[in-house]
Amino acid sequence: MAILVVGSVAYDTVETPREKRERQLGGSASFFAVAARGKVPVRCVGVVGEDFREEDLQLLRDHGADTSGIVREPGASFHWSGRYHADMIERDTLATELGVFADFQPGIPAAWRGSEYLFLANIHPDLQLHVLEQMTGPRLIALDTMNLWIETTPEALRRVLARVDILLVNDGEARQLTGKRSLAHAARDIAAMGPRRVIIKKGEHGALYFGADSVLAVPALILDDVVDPTGAGDSFAGGFMAAVAAAGAGRDDGDAVFRAAMLEGTVTASFCPEGFSVEGLLHASDDTYRKRLDALRAMMIP
Amino acid sequence: MAILVVGSVAYDTVETPREKRERQLGGSASFFAVAARGKVPVRCVGVVGEDFREEDLQLLRDHGADTSGIVREPGASFHWSGRYHADMIERDTLATELGVFADFQPGIPAAWRGSEYLFLANIHPDLQLHVLEQMTGPRLIALDTMNLWIETTPEALRRVLARVDILLVNDGEARQLTGKRSLAHAARDIAAMGPRRVIIKKGEHGALYFGADSVLAVPALILDDVVDPTGAGDSFAGGFMAAVAAAGAGRDDGDAVFRAAMLEGTVTASFCPEGFSVEGLLHASDDTYRKRLDALRAMMIP
Repeated sequence: MAILVVGSVAYDTVETPREKRERQLGGSASFFAVAARGKVPVRCVGVVGEDFREEDLQLLRDHGADTSGIVREPGASFHWSGRYHADMIERDTLATELGVFADFQPGIPAAWRGSEYLFLANIHPDLQLHVLEQMTGPRLIALDTMNLWIETTPEALRRVLARVDILLVNDGEARQLTGKRSLAHAARDIAAMGPRRVIIKKGEHGALYFGADSVLAVPALILDDVVDPTGAGDSFAGGFMAAVAAAGAGRDDGDAVFRAAMLEGTVTASFCPEGFSVEGLLHASDDTYRKRLDALRAMMIP
Repeated sequence: MAILVVGSVAYDTVETPREKRERQLGGSASFFAVAARGKVPVRCVGVVGEDFREEDLQLLRDHGADTSGIVREPGASFHWSGRYHADMIERDTLATELGVFADFQPGIPAAWRGSEYLFLANIHPDLQLHVLEQMTGPRLIALDTMNLWIETTPEALRRVLARVDILLVNDGEARQLTGKRSLAHAARDIAAMGPRRVIIKKGEHGALYFGADSVLAVPALILDDVVDPTGAGDSFAGGFMAAVAAAGAGRDDGDAVFRAAMLEGTVTASFCPEGFSVEGLLHASDDTYRKRLDALRAMMIP
């Protein structure tokens, strides 16, 4: 039960009120792959430039990712630079240098086209469609997107949404995509666009799952210290999808597996802000993971 | 097991993008009393002016409140006027006319001084202390406050906090009171000021209960339509305290009753925004109430 993830493999320069880190491993596919914690094989498709350090690819491999779908092209790697405000939530993007990512045309290796699970991380919806067209019927397709595509390529986004099973977005994106203030209404409208299950992430307020026949509200774990929240959303997706794939769930299954996977995504995401880059995820022992899962359940069950 | 509530009994003029209502029944004690749904006797202490309609006091009595502690003084009733933004969350206060409330000195009728439960709604902390000094050892004391008192009368607020069992505040107030961004840290600091249990209300994101030995996160119910959110916080308090009092819980009890009461508070509060004034609360049938409680549990249990 392998997951294919198509997304960015990048360098992030992150400035927080306490510290600045330059060109550290980032990108949606990187966070997603490490977040899966080796529960299932993760196949990464992406592009890096000549500057990309081999040790960073090795780190992904060391944590269960197959990086043979990450191609190296002449030019610079995708580089994002941002500065967090004192609340560690609001942030200003200082630079987005697409580099080799500008011409990224994801080619899926023939041996991977039958991957059972597909996560289309946040890239241009035309590229997401291009990936879909290369696949031979995955059991389940999940998709992330962002305000940029909602604004600039709404038709392409609608085309790809019509073909996916799960949409993961944040609350602002859900409202922007539908024009609905109520997240219940937004989720209903999104389901009508295609995805039968909708996950709305609310950061420190947790996440909502709108399933085939049920709704689940999962609180965020309460963190003592936030070092760098970059990548928490992709970490959520990685933890969630790994749990779904490990259970072998398909698009016609009931909500139970997906509800349980929401907790795995939440716990996984809780580690991400505790370190720069993927460091928080890497420091999460199985024991700490289990303890947080227990703590989350205790926070949820009346 | 009666609850004594001391707070405002007022008129609200509320303007929403759709409608404007003038001088309708409002005030913390009014919302609290109606929200208790007659589960336990609620004794109201407050002050109204000559303009206060007898039918509004009768409405409170019809819903289980004893209004014999509401005195009528020469002058105008407390009148608040506000305008909600399109999101129905942000609001501008257009006028706060204290009227007879400016000289309010809550006197507790002798027969009520032994009330088992005390809810000190949001009034000047010196008045809250004045009430406390008239009581003969309630089983449990809960208190609400606001940014105004946190800013202008911090010492008085500290004195009263040292003597209460439960503080109910919203997330902004918890942060302001403690200077802590993390709500877990804020709750810990507040507990060190006196209240063993801290409830942090987050509006559409639900509420957190920080108890003696446990934490519970309760999501808000997802509403189809918001007419007027004024009073939702006091409605939460009324539903919560009525459940605690009906169970006969005391300050040294474990968290179980309080955790269950969080759900009752949440369901109660969900009705308030569905109408102007207390109308949403009044329209909540026992059957709808039970259904929402079931729906809330289904949203919470993984």
